[in-house]
Amino acid sequence: MTDHRNTGITSDLRVNGQRLWDSLMEMAQIGATDKGGCNRQALTDLDKQGRDLFVQWCEDAGCSVTFDDMGNIFARRPGKNSSLPPVLTGSHLDTQPTGGQFDGVYGVLAGLEVVRSLNDADVQTEAPLEVAVWTNEEGARFSPAMIGSGVWSGNFEREYAYARTDKEGKTFGEELARIGYKGDTPAKARDLTAAFEVHIEQGPILEAEEKQIGVLSGVQGMYWYDLTLIGQPCHAGPSPMEGRRDPFMGLHRILDQLYKLAEEHAPWARATFGDMRVEPGSRNTVPEKIVLAVDLRHPDQQVLDAMDRRFREIAAAVAEEAGLEHDIRDEWRSPAVKFDEKCVQAVRSAVTELGYSNKEMVSGAGHDSVYISRVAPTSMIFVPCEKGLSHNEAENAEPKDLEAGANVLLHAMLKMANNTA
Amino acid sequence: MTDHRNTGITSDLRVNGQRLWDSLMEMAQIGATDKGGCNRQALTDLDKQGRDLFVQWCEDAGCSVTFDDMGNIFARRPGKNSSLPPVLTGSHLDTQPTGGQFDGVYGVLAGLEVVRSLNDADVQTEAPLEVAVWTNEEGARFSPAMIGSGVWSGNFEREYAYARTDKEGKTFGEELARIGYKGDTPAKARDLTAAFEVHIEQGPILEAEEKQIGVLSGVQGMYWYDLTLIGQPCHAGPSPMEGRRDPFMGLHRILDQLYKLAEEHAPWARATFGDMRVEPGSRNTVPEKIVLAVDLRHPDQQVLDAMDRRFREIAAAVAEEAGLEHDIRDEWRSPAVKFDEKCVQAVRSAVTELGYSNKEMVSGAGHDSVYISRVAPTSMIFVPCEKGLSHNEAENAEPKDLEAGANVLLHAMLKMANNTA
Repeated sequence: MTDHRNTGITSDLRVNGQRLWDSLMEMAQIGATDKGGCNRQALTDLDKQGRDLFVQWCEDAGCSVTFDDMGNIFARRPGKNSSLPPVLTGSHLDTQPTGGQFDGVYGVLAGLEVVRSLNDADVQTEAPLEVAVWTNEEGARFSPAMIGSGVWSGNFEREYAYARTDKEGKTFGEELARIGYKGDTPAKARDLTAAFEVHIEQGPILEAEEKQIGVLSGVQGMYWYDLTLIGQPCHAGPSPMEGRRDPFMGLHRILDQLYKLAEEHAPWARATFGDMRVEPGSRNTVPEKIVLAVDLRHPDQQVLDAMDRRFREIAAAVAEEAGLEHDIRDEWRSPAVKFDEKCVQAVRSAVTELGYSNKEMVSGAGHDSVYISRVAPTSMIFVPCEKGLSHNEAENAEPKDLEAGANVLLHAMLKMANNTA
Repeated sequence: MTDHRNTGITSDLRVNGQRLWDSLMEMAQIGATDKGGCNRQALTDLDKQGRDLFVQWCEDAGCSVTFDDMGNIFARRPGKNSSLPPVLTGSHLDTQPTGGQFDGVYGVLAGLEVVRSLNDADVQTEAPLEVAVWTNEEGARFSPAMIGSGVWSGNFEREYAYARTDKEGKTFGEELARIGYKGDTPAKARDLTAAFEVHIEQGPILEAEEKQIGVLSGVQGMYWYDLTLIGQPCHAGPSPMEGRRDPFMGLHRILDQLYKLAEEHAPWARATFGDMRVEPGSRNTVPEKIVLAVDLRHPDQQVLDAMDRRFREIAAAVAEEAGLEHDIRDEWRSPAVKFDEKCVQAVRSAVTELGYSNKEMVSGAGHDSVYISRVAPTSMIFVPCEKGLSHNEAENAEPKDLEAGANVLLHAMLKMANNTA
């Protein structure tokens, strides 16, 4: 039996940019802040409202909606061949406390817009499509980040996730049940034909280079450390400079050498120091101890590992030279991700066919796709955001860019679902 | 009339080192800590006990004892000529919360030992002698430090001093009255022939150079600042290194240049960074702001002022180069002190005659003598302390060094009181 709905030429298909924008602005009302941002943190009443609206929209678009025991929502649009694994797209609806209108929610509603556009054009894909909402991506209310996709992909234990608490001591598990999104199906990876995620860049590169689409080949590996330097506290006045064991004397050399290390591996290496603690922290006493938060990143795992080794050598050498003790605690290690070449190629072909200016790049931030990529062929699509600002109420993006990203998503999903990539 | 008591040869006079040590150890019982230190904070019941013991000892030694409305105690031993301004020595009896057995109390009890030794030898000086206890030198219970000598010398207002509060909200004025040491005489500088203070070094120099006595020519000038560097917060991953306005990128260059500045003015210059604050202090965000506590010191006021100018130039140049805003707030400015040449010479002569190994030096820490020196001819004497440790329960000093310091004090006071310097 031939299904007439799949005989049309899909290369002319485009999403409805205005509808996408309107949906974004309607969702942004839920948790809207005075400064034009959004505060819709995970598993709050507002998160429930946002989820309910999304579910309603998906059901209106003819999808069947389910959610698993982590509250991950899957809206499924049937394919012609229901035995084929679905092509999934998704992101998150939760926000930072002073978050923006686009981080996460754009990826979710772009997926919905793909479904709506296919409905409008009366196109049925070979494989089914699914639009996913992953629970608690931000990690703002419940740490760590990406709990929903993390459990689904086997990176976190279910009970660990349920036991996470917010600042008031409420658990993830209790709050998930309270808002009615604790399903019966265990969160667990299923076979997927492909997974895509479209997201605002959260960085300044596309805007600066005037490119409309980022074709992502992977995600930077990130290593987080606490570097402790221990010296000998002494009085700022009587103690001669030459005999001091002053942690700041080691600090400035380590900072200098780590910035140089990042330069050696430009343009993709990153060295960031987000926090530092000084003990005892008395103005006229050489500190006993400083603890520096170190964040090193590179998209190439081999380079990142080389940076890791150099960091340890630098810290050891400087500490010895300055007469300090030192310690490096591994706080978090997220290896570099290389996206699936076939998925990347599907995005690349879609961009080329659609004629958008574009740049091949890697993501500097973590996303649900990092976890999804461990169990399914995955890639991502970026669109520019104003000044690279994100996690900020002033987060902004151009409607035309959001539309372009959704068009790329549409065609990449079509290629994978129809096996034409 | 000839007084037979002043016809003896005083150059053979020595203090009784054992008696000095015994007095120190007896006083150290008041507020003794488990770790062998002392907790006898200003205007506590323990401070009162220490004062009462000192007053009793002074009266036993034939002194007339008075105290002023700041609780500063003066024990006077008459001279042959009561119209001559007295030669004063003194320090403080209060300690840090985890203080030692020598900081301050040694200077007080060495003065008492001078009186006792002169009594033993039946020597009367031309000018009267006084042993002073200055209230709240440490600033540990009531900030700022050196309140008693500060009001006496006109550096603080009386009402300001009375209104200082401890952590429980009790005022200096209330507590002073409560322990019975709020006198009627206003604390106010009087004519002094000379003032001396003997103190443990609170630094490692004498011990390292194996010198028994420090002949002090002055006190380091100290400038305290808060240096603020303001950048642009951004995400540690997506933001390229080259576009960042990262306060840490300015910080390490400023630290480097300030350490070099101290080297240029070695051996007496000091550059110390005792505390730092990072905002917002998120591990994966380039900070918006860091605030660094800067402490610059030099005994020569001209050099210190040159260092002050260079610091401002360095901060401005680095901030501009790194795309940062910066601000320098003056937290405290204590100009360098040059002690009175005649008083210094009296100490120098005494040390030479007594044959002690010695070193000309400046004090790196503040003392009551800083304020006294503004209204009277003043100098100080240092003795070594173990490993330079002070403000620490492990503070320690050798009985023979404490005795040597008291002998120097004795002879310097004799020279000034008999006008033979």
